[in-house]
Amino acid sequence: MTQISPLAPEHIVDLPPVAGVRLAATYAAIRYKTPRPDLMLALLDEGTTVAGVFTLSLAASAPVERGRWALKAGGGKARALVVNAGNSNAFTGKSGEKAVDETVAAAAAVAGCKPEEVFVASTGVIGEKLPFEKITAVLPDLAEKAGDGGWDESSRSILTTDTFAKRTFRKVQIGGKTVTLSGFAKGSGMIAPHMGTMLAFLFTDAAIAPDVLQTMLQAANDKSFNAITVDSDTSTSDTALLFATGKAGNASIESLTSEDAETFAAALDSVMLELAHLIIKDGEGASKFVAIEVTGAADDAAARRIGLAIGNSPLVKTAIAGCDPNWGRLVMAVGKAGEKADRDNLAIWIGGVLVAENGEVSPDYREPPTAEYMKGRDIHIRVDVAVGKGEATIWTCDFTKRYIEINADYRS
Amino acid sequence: MTQISPLAPEHIVDLPPVAGVRLAATYAAIRYKTPRPDLMLALLDEGTTVAGVFTLSLAASAPVERGRWALKAGGGKARALVVNAGNSNAFTGKSGEKAVDETVAAAAAVAGCKPEEVFVASTGVIGEKLPFEKITAVLPDLAEKAGDGGWDESSRSILTTDTFAKRTFRKVQIGGKTVTLSGFAKGSGMIAPHMGTMLAFLFTDAAIAPDVLQTMLQAANDKSFNAITVDSDTSTSDTALLFATGKAGNASIESLTSEDAETFAAALDSVMLELAHLIIKDGEGASKFVAIEVTGAADDAAARRIGLAIGNSPLVKTAIAGCDPNWGRLVMAVGKAGEKADRDNLAIWIGGVLVAENGEVSPDYREPPTAEYMKGRDIHIRVDVAVGKGEATIWTCDFTKRYIEINADYRS
Repeated sequence: MTQISPLAPEHIVDLPPVAGVRLAATYAAIRYKTPRPDLMLALLDEGTTVAGVFTLSLAASAPVERGRWALKAGGGKARALVVNAGNSNAFTGKSGEKAVDETVAAAAAVAGCKPEEVFVASTGVIGEKLPFEKITAVLPDLAEKAGDGGWDESSRSILTTDTFAKRTFRKVQIGGKTVTLSGFAKGSGMIAPHMGTMLAFLFTDAAIAPDVLQTMLQAANDKSFNAITVDSDTSTSDTALLFATGKAGNASIESLTSEDAETFAAALDSVMLELAHLIIKDGEGASKFVAIEVTGAADDAAARRIGLAIGNSPLVKTAIAGCDPNWGRLVMAVGKAGEKADRDNLAIWIGGVLVAENGEVSPDYREPPTAEYMKGRDIHIRVDVAVGKGEATIWTCDFTKRYIEINADYRS
Repeated sequence: MTQISPLAPEHIVDLPPVAGVRLAATYAAIRYKTPRPDLMLALLDEGTTVAGVFTLSLAASAPVERGRWALKAGGGKARALVVNAGNSNAFTGKSGEKAVDETVAAAAAVAGCKPEEVFVASTGVIGEKLPFEKITAVLPDLAEKAGDGGWDESSRSILTTDTFAKRTFRKVQIGGKTVTLSGFAKGSGMIAPHMGTMLAFLFTDAAIAPDVLQTMLQAANDKSFNAITVDSDTSTSDTALLFATGKAGNASIESLTSEDAETFAAALDSVMLELAHLIIKDGEGASKFVAIEVTGAADDAAARRIGLAIGNSPLVKTAIAGCDPNWGRLVMAVGKAGEKADRDNLAIWIGGVLVAENGEVSPDYREPPTAEYMKGRDIHIRVDVAVGKGEATIWTCDFTKRYIEINADYRS
């Protein structure tokens, strides 16, 4: 929480309460020596539905495996969420599973629910035993304290190397009722230094059936958290959970095709995209926010892979850090993506200016104005690979000396 | 050619002549303003066979496409090789093809051969027209000058951002004859800054049938150039060519299974591995040479992908730069590789010391000696993923602030 990212928003919004959700956070001294909130509890009213998406890592943490299980075993119902920062409880073997069991049992006791209605998430150091006693000891106090006003402290309690809190909300009308959707996230790199994890928690008072909620979450996730990259590294703990308490009083959304479903899905897409962009804006060492739009690909999946090849290329990202409109490196990255592209009809725009077309530099291109554009904080790159109608946009940041400092000097 | 890599070898060997190969290099002022060799010609005696491997980039350069064509059209025969530095003739559209046509025609004229017996390679800036007239104008002089003694100048003429010349040789006995194999390479990053390319040229006086030569080259390539990574970026121009003049007088090697074939293949493997290691030792900003051994994978290909996931991870590479035995990042990289791994039986060794076993930190592990080991220049990491017998070794370098400087500040 030292030097705030130069890309941080000027104003960090306050989150409004969501009917059916009570929150509290505290300092449980899990790892940090200077007191700061590092543990949160959310209590969810009876009838709350839940959807979740998790890391694809094959070395997923114990809390992630528990979350996947609870989602199935609980039938899409949730009553409590416990999150700690400072220790990710990843690569901790049997002791990691025990820490999850004990935390879940204590949370189920204070929430008065079944273990499969409790979700847990942990972020922080990998490979050290999670001191779960520090968590279970304070859960009764947290449950007592939990209320409408815990949003600020809770959204800060999940941060690790983040330099600012990432949160936003939307209010929409559904079936004549005002529905609130509030969310907060953490992440400063797909995985932060030795402090894994992208986490996002979303709460709404809308009434939505679990299967509909899950489909909406996955669709929004593909367009937001799955479309950003800081350093191409995948955390062992990535988790996004969406809770719907049903307290807004709307007729429950039971199908994806209704107008209500579309209204809510649009709000969800918008909130998750904003949170995803905030994570990029807090990317380790980031000095520029970069949108990479790929068009003309064989299909949308191919466009996505080409976008990620560009967004993950160290040579592209260092060129951007150096304010260099180095389109040769964009061509290189398209070539390595392994997706169909028509080299001799490739076109590239930087900041809307046509830089290359028909497989070579555009005859009208003059570098000085584009070099000037590259000095800005928001960079837009478009590549058309001229083989089809697939398209996708990927967001990333640049790759600076500060990234190396943060990650190489972490322990020194 | 400014600051020499701290990992450069103390002694750079001189290459011996190879019967049937005449070489020369000169300054053709293709891009560099300070005179230095930037163009080489190799003339190969009649009867020379050739094998080649090229970049998998879908945006391959005009010289690469020409090489692929010549290999087929010429039936594995070669009489001349022309290489220039300073301009990669990549992403140059129709003008790039014309530059290749003109260069090949001029080389065929001086060599007295067919166009399909001429190979060309170019390395340097992407997207600028290659001034081929500067090449064709001096080829007759180069052909005149070509001889036994051109090895030093030729091996230096292909360098771009390299800080030292990469070359080595072996002499082996085949069928009672002494056979020489000499090779040189360039590369300082899978792709150097705006100056694409890994190039390697190997020459032997052994007599070897083209199909056997091609199979040997591909096999050696998989274990050498395809097993190194500086920054995960793939050049549009990567090329390795192996020429066999047949002047040593050995009975031609017509099958892969003979003792002669095994002797030559072993020498080839050894030369290419040494050249590949030299490229890593000249990796941009490199301060450490890193071997990553993966064992216990589902198969060798899976082991290779896990090794590359580790070797390409910015977080692993920055930890190594910071002398940090950060095994949590190794676990993360294994998890993201997408290959089968038994998280709860994973084991990790750093410098031969068992750091993690059974999916958690080893009870006997003490960090101080391993942290001391990480301060060295040669780092060996082994990861056993405990699902099968597949294994592979990947070589890489660390990821330092100097890499960012080189690549972000290149134009400034």
